[in-house]
Amino acid sequence: MRIAVLGVGLIGGSIGLAARERIEDAEVVGYGRSPERLERARKLGAIEVAAGSLAEALDGAEACFCCGPVGALEAQARDALAAAAGDCAVTDVGSVKAPLVAAVDDERFVGGHPVAGAETSGVEHARADLFEGAVWYLTPTARTAGVLLERVHRLVGRLGARPTAIDPAAHDRLMATVSHLPHVLANVLVAQVAATLDDERKPLTATGPSFRDATRVAGANSAIWIDIYISNREALGRAIDETIRRLEGARDDLAAADARALAEWNDGAAGDRRRLLEAQLAGGPVHELRVSVPNRPGVIAQLALELGAAGINISDMALYPAADMSEGVVALWIAGESAARRAQDLVAGLGHPVARA
Amino acid sequence: MRIAVLGVGLIGGSIGLAARERIEDAEVVGYGRSPERLERARKLGAIEVAAGSLAEALDGAEACFCCGPVGALEAQARDALAAAAGDCAVTDVGSVKAPLVAAVDDERFVGGHPVAGAETSGVEHARADLFEGAVWYLTPTARTAGVLLERVHRLVGRLGARPTAIDPAAHDRLMATVSHLPHVLANVLVAQVAATLDDERKPLTATGPSFRDATRVAGANSAIWIDIYISNREALGRAIDETIRRLEGARDDLAAADARALAEWNDGAAGDRRRLLEAQLAGGPVHELRVSVPNRPGVIAQLALELGAAGINISDMALYPAADMSEGVVALWIAGESAARRAQDLVAGLGHPVARA
Repeated sequence: MRIAVLGVGLIGGSIGLAARERIEDAEVVGYGRSPERLERARKLGAIEVAAGSLAEALDGAEACFCCGPVGALEAQARDALAAAAGDCAVTDVGSVKAPLVAAVDDERFVGGHPVAGAETSGVEHARADLFEGAVWYLTPTARTAGVLLERVHRLVGRLGARPTAIDPAAHDRLMATVSHLPHVLANVLVAQVAATLDDERKPLTATGPSFRDATRVAGANSAIWIDIYISNREALGRAIDETIRRLEGARDDLAAADARALAEWNDGAAGDRRRLLEAQLAGGPVHELRVSVPNRPGVIAQLALELGAAGINISDMALYPAADMSEGVVALWIAGESAARRAQDLVAGLGHPVARA
Repeated sequence: MRIAVLGVGLIGGSIGLAARERIEDAEVVGYGRSPERLERARKLGAIEVAAGSLAEALDGAEACFCCGPVGALEAQARDALAAAAGDCAVTDVGSVKAPLVAAVDDERFVGGHPVAGAETSGVEHARADLFEGAVWYLTPTARTAGVLLERVHRLVGRLGARPTAIDPAAHDRLMATVSHLPHVLANVLVAQVAATLDDERKPLTATGPSFRDATRVAGANSAIWIDIYISNREALGRAIDETIRRLEGARDDLAAADARALAEWNDGAAGDRRRLLEAQLAGGPVHELRVSVPNRPGVIAQLALELGAAGINISDMALYPAADMSEGVVALWIAGESAARRAQDLVAGLGHPVARA
C-alpha cells in the first residue's frame, strides 16, 4: 500500500517509521516544502521516497496523512484532495477538528488527531513506537465514505494506536479543557507571578516547586500554539469562562472562611486527580511514593536504576529540590499495588526515608 | 544554647537535626501533643530531650520554635510566650504571617517562615540540610526586641538558611501568588477536567502530560492547606481576582482571534518563566534538554547516572510518557551553559536524540 505523508516532522516521520516497520506492504512517500528536511527524513528511514511534487506524492497513494501545522491544514487537505485519486483516503493529524472538518467537505476526508508527542518537534525525534497505545481520534461525518473510514481506522490501528471515533465538536471541547486550558492557566500564572515579584520588588528566586510544576507548559512554542488557540477559540473561550466561574466559587468560599466547603473542594480535587491518573494506567491504580534524598548527583539515578533493574517502571517522577535546586524530595508514581510495595521496599533498602503520599 | 521546638514533625525535626549538627552548644528540647511522636523524634536524634510539659520545654530556653499547623500557631505562640522567660525569643514556621503577627503582640515574638519542604510530613523525613540555602522569612515589627530578632536571625542562618526580613503583609501577598494560587488553579483544573470528561461521557484516560504537570499540586493535604487558605484568604482572594482579570483578557484576545496579542502573551510567559527559573539557579541560566527515549525501564536511570557520574546535576526533570505511560520524552533542566553542553553530548553519546528546547 502506497502511503503519502505530507509534512515530515515528528508526527509525519513517526507515521512513516511506524508504517514501514509494522505494515508489510507499505511504501511511504514523503512530500514537504523543504527539500533538505525531506532528504533528512529519507536518510532516517522515515520515508522511502522523497517526492518532487504533491502530484508525485499522491500518485497511486491509497492513503494520505496531512501533517502540517494546524493553521495550514485546510489548504494542505484541499490540495491533497485535489491531487488524490477518487479512492484515496485523506486524513490529517491536527489537534483541532471542527473548523477543518467543516471546511473540507469531501467524502474522501477523515479528520484525525493522534494524542501523542507534542513535546518535541522535528523528524530527528520521530519514533516507530510514538503511537503505541495512544488514542488516535477520528472525526468522520455523514458524508465520509465508509470504505475509506475503515481504511484509515485499520491503518491507524496498525501504526499501534487506538483509533477512537468522536464528533469533531466534542473532540474540540475535550481538547479545550484537557490540553489547551492547562497551557492558558500556566501562561497566566507565570505572568502573574513575575508581575507580583516585580511589584513587590522581591527577588525572582522566591518561587517554589508548586509554581514550577504548575507552569511547566507555559509559553509553549508560539509557532504551533497560536494556531491551535485561535482554531479552537470558541471551545477554549467557553472553557476559560467555566474556569472563571470556578475561581469565583473558590474566592467566595475563601471570603466566607468556609472551611467545610474548602475541604470538600480540595478533597474533591485530590479524588478527581487520583481517578484520572488511575484511569490512564494499564497496570492498575497508581501509587505515589515520596522519597527524601540527600543533595548530591547520582542519587536519583541510583533510585531509578534500582527500580528499573527490578522491572518496576516509574510512570511519572517529580523532583522537589530544596531552595538550592539540588535534590530534596522525589515523588515517584508507580502503577500497581504490588509494584509500588516492592518499590517502597527497594527504596527503603537504599537507606532513603520513603512514604506513601 | 537551649532551644525549644514545639511540634516535632518535618520542620521541627529538621530544625532540631540542623541545630544539633551545626550549632556546637545547642541543646534541643522537644515538646508536642503526642508522646509517641516525641519519643520517635528523640530516637531519630532530632531532639535531645523530650519534655513532659510546655513549661519544662521552655525552662531555660533562649529560643523557641513554634512548629504547629498554621491554624494552631496563634495559641501555640501565646502559650509559649506565657511560659518563656523574659529574654527568650519565640518564633514560628507558619506559611501565613500577617494575622499571626497582628494577634501575637509581644516584643519577644518574631514571625518566621522557612520556604522549604512542604512535600512530605513527619519527623521521619526530617533532614539536617532541609534549610540549606533556603529563604527563611522573618517578619519583625516595630515592637520586636532588637536583641531577640538578632538572635533568631543568626540562629536561622546557622541552620543553613538565608534569613530575609519582610513585612508580614508583603510576605502573605507574595505567598498568595507564588505558592497558594498554584494550588487553587490546580484544584480548579482537575475538577473542571473531571467534570468535562463526565459530561462528554468520555473515558478518563483522555488526559495528557500538560494536564498532569499542571495538576501535580492539586488536592494537597487538607489538614495543612485549609488552614493556610483561610488564614491567607484576603491576599489569596485578591490574587484569584487578578487571575480572573488575566483570564478574561486571554479570552477576549481569543474571541477576537488576535494572533499578535496572543503571541505576545504566550512569548511573554515563556520569557517570564525562563527569567524566574534562571533566577532560582545558583549555577547560571537554566537550559532545557529534550531527550527522546525508548519505552523500557532503566533508560532514565542510565541517563541520570551518566550525567551524575560526570558531575552534572539535573536541576529538574519531567517525563512525558506516551499514552501507555511508559517513557517517551524526558525533559532535563541543567544549570549553566557548559554543563548543559556537556550533558547534551553525553546524552547523544548514549544514542538518544536530544535537542535544546
